[in-house]
Amino acid sequence: MAHEIDRTGSVTSAQGFVAGAVYAGMKTYGEGKLDVALLASERSCTVAATFTQNLLHSASVDIDRAKLAAGPVRAVVVNAGIANSSTGARGIADGERVTELAGARLGLPASEVLICSTGVIGHFLPMEKMEAGVAAVAVSPKGGLDFARAIMTTDTRPKHAAVRFGPYTLGGCTKGSGMIHPNMATMLAFLTTDAPVEGAFLQSALSDVVGRSFNMLSIDGDTSPSDTVLLFANGAAGGELITAQSPQAPEFTTALEVLCTFLAKEMARDGEGATKLIEFRISGAADLSQARSLIRLLTTSYLLKSAIHGADPNWGRIVAVIGRSGVAVSERAVSVAICGTRVFEHEQPTAFEPAEVAAAMQGDTIVIDIELGAGLASAIGWGCDLSAEYVSINADYHT
Amino acid sequence: MAHEIDRTGSVTSAQGFVAGAVYAGMKTYGEGKLDVALLASERSCTVAATFTQNLLHSASVDIDRAKLAAGPVRAVVVNAGIANSSTGARGIADGERVTELAGARLGLPASEVLICSTGVIGHFLPMEKMEAGVAAVAVSPKGGLDFARAIMTTDTRPKHAAVRFGPYTLGGCTKGSGMIHPNMATMLAFLTTDAPVEGAFLQSALSDVVGRSFNMLSIDGDTSPSDTVLLFANGAAGGELITAQSPQAPEFTTALEVLCTFLAKEMARDGEGATKLIEFRISGAADLSQARSLIRLLTTSYLLKSAIHGADPNWGRIVAVIGRSGVAVSERAVSVAICGTRVFEHEQPTAFEPAEVAAAMQGDTIVIDIELGAGLASAIGWGCDLSAEYVSINADYHT
Repeated sequence: MAHEIDRTGSVTSAQGFVAGAVYAGMKTYGEGKLDVALLASERSCTVAATFTQNLLHSASVDIDRAKLAAGPVRAVVVNAGIANSSTGARGIADGERVTELAGARLGLPASEVLICSTGVIGHFLPMEKMEAGVAAVAVSPKGGLDFARAIMTTDTRPKHAAVRFGPYTLGGCTKGSGMIHPNMATMLAFLTTDAPVEGAFLQSALSDVVGRSFNMLSIDGDTSPSDTVLLFANGAAGGELITAQSPQAPEFTTALEVLCTFLAKEMARDGEGATKLIEFRISGAADLSQARSLIRLLTTSYLLKSAIHGADPNWGRIVAVIGRSGVAVSERAVSVAICGTRVFEHEQPTAFEPAEVAAAMQGDTIVIDIELGAGLASAIGWGCDLSAEYVSINADYHT
Repeated sequence: MAHEIDRTGSVTSAQGFVAGAVYAGMKTYGEGKLDVALLASERSCTVAATFTQNLLHSASVDIDRAKLAAGPVRAVVVNAGIANSSTGARGIADGERVTELAGARLGLPASEVLICSTGVIGHFLPMEKMEAGVAAVAVSPKGGLDFARAIMTTDTRPKHAAVRFGPYTLGGCTKGSGMIHPNMATMLAFLTTDAPVEGAFLQSALSDVVGRSFNMLSIDGDTSPSDTVLLFANGAAGGELITAQSPQAPEFTTALEVLCTFLAKEMARDGEGATKLIEFRISGAADLSQARSLIRLLTTSYLLKSAIHGADPNWGRIVAVIGRSGVAVSERAVSVAICGTRVFEHEQPTAFEPAEVAAAMQGDTIVIDIELGAGLASAIGWGCDLSAEYVSINADYHT
């Protein structure tokens, strides 16, 4: 079947990509733990990227933006445990040096190597450990799963997959589950394909798909200075260059959306303390931006996240969020369904049976459908429930 | 001392106000519980009001807006347990009928009686209980404390006080601690004064002070369709009419701000599951609206509220919120102090001792000072920490 998710896939599923990881000593030691990783294309490639919207960004994000503007790149070094954020000029110099070390290890100029860092902010990179770590990484076409494990922080499991489209493979992995031990949420995603994709189209497809997938996910509403999505396309599987006008363009975009949506939902399921994935489906919005902003408010409502944790069909909390959202709507036209049961319409609750809906809400996926009756725009987004476990994960760590 | 808070004060501290309450059976029964209350001025008065900004509002809010636009009012009936929200035309008719019953009990036309309701949404008022309850309320100049208890929902204690200014008294009470059993946050406040205050000035003073006090408070970011603040001024203590031009005008506004700020902080301290009051002080903002919107983001950050619950001096979470807030700022100019210790400046953490700051954070009041270095505007606001108890309060109730 087209676009079937292969859960064993990774960043090295596509041809011509190699990866590897080691334990360099930045994370607290644990059996099998990894914290420094390399990913590279064996041949030149096009790269697309999206970065955090946070005004304050990490040294790594600043370095990557500059390298991408300057010329071609084809590799990335990742370290987990130290975010190298709020570290000033020394943070920039340290990050640049790490890309030199990674380039030396890979036989590439530093200009072709990006860097992503995730972890505690306000700490400098331990350069001796980084130097020894990078020098010890052995990359191979089988290194994708190690790479996926190395980028984890509070994630409870690695998140990786691949999809095929035509003769091509698109693989990737992501990390992020709410907050990084012990400082802030960071979401990183690395995607690779052996399709030959023209740079401008690669970037527009990535920006478009990130807007519908990773950007529609919220664990707790906090965005980090380090959020980064990188997509490498090396053309190793041959064929004609795919541009926005190519017959294969829609299929590529669809495959990218299938993979990114899968990885985004995996992150929501693995949200800190999460026991349920919540899928919000908004229809009838006046425009797309209103539909999306409503989803962001719903996914971050303390009251609604708590109610869903308790499997409580508490439609009043949904209606109250719609009311404070500022979206164009008349209460008369709004209807709400929880797990397929219409619970609110015509300004009043329906005659639904709360116990039946509560029973449906015992499952691990809660679907909330909201019809606003104000227009034709729609959007889908994902979040997770709020548990006491979330509080203890985030209150009980100390810097 | 001028404007000293009298914690024994209430809505009947000012001359010429009477109040009373009974148990009508809307709340779950408990020893000494009250759930229907009346407050009235013995003489005609001016009234100012502010209502929820939620697009969806309760029947009571709609009724009150219409009565205030139509002519003078001097009393209010309050019921706790049922919000009479999302109840359509029948909700409006029920609410109107309750004001008739309260008017009959007080010897006033229904047009002079407002109504406030707080509790479960989507349920109709139990009219037989309301009728019997209202008929049983005995009002007196000593009824203010009963009134304060009757309006409570998930509040763990009544919140009431009074202040004196010149020959006058200003008293009040408030309710709201996060979420109403079992549906949504409602904040109600009732304020009375025996000063003779002209209507237009009363309204402008109230709107101004509410913007700096109750509106700068956030327990969980959810606003209810029922939020209401009412201020009655009956002139029973005599003297000349106070207008915006009067020499007493600044003193009245100051007294009002002292009382409302005290009551707002009492609400934050009694937030659901709260163990700490957090006071945010922003200075150096480009304008007032940026300072206020930053406080709203800080008071609702899951990560920051969790960190403060754990007494963790986690300045990275504060800096990250500033970064995503959209306020005009350069990281270089930002400094952050927690409980009086500067922890971040010049884009880097200071050499503070985390254990000392963590020790200071064991207290029940946490002050966060943020200097943005972007302008001259400042603002203060209040919130509370996020505890596992909050989640269980809000997840374990079922509709």
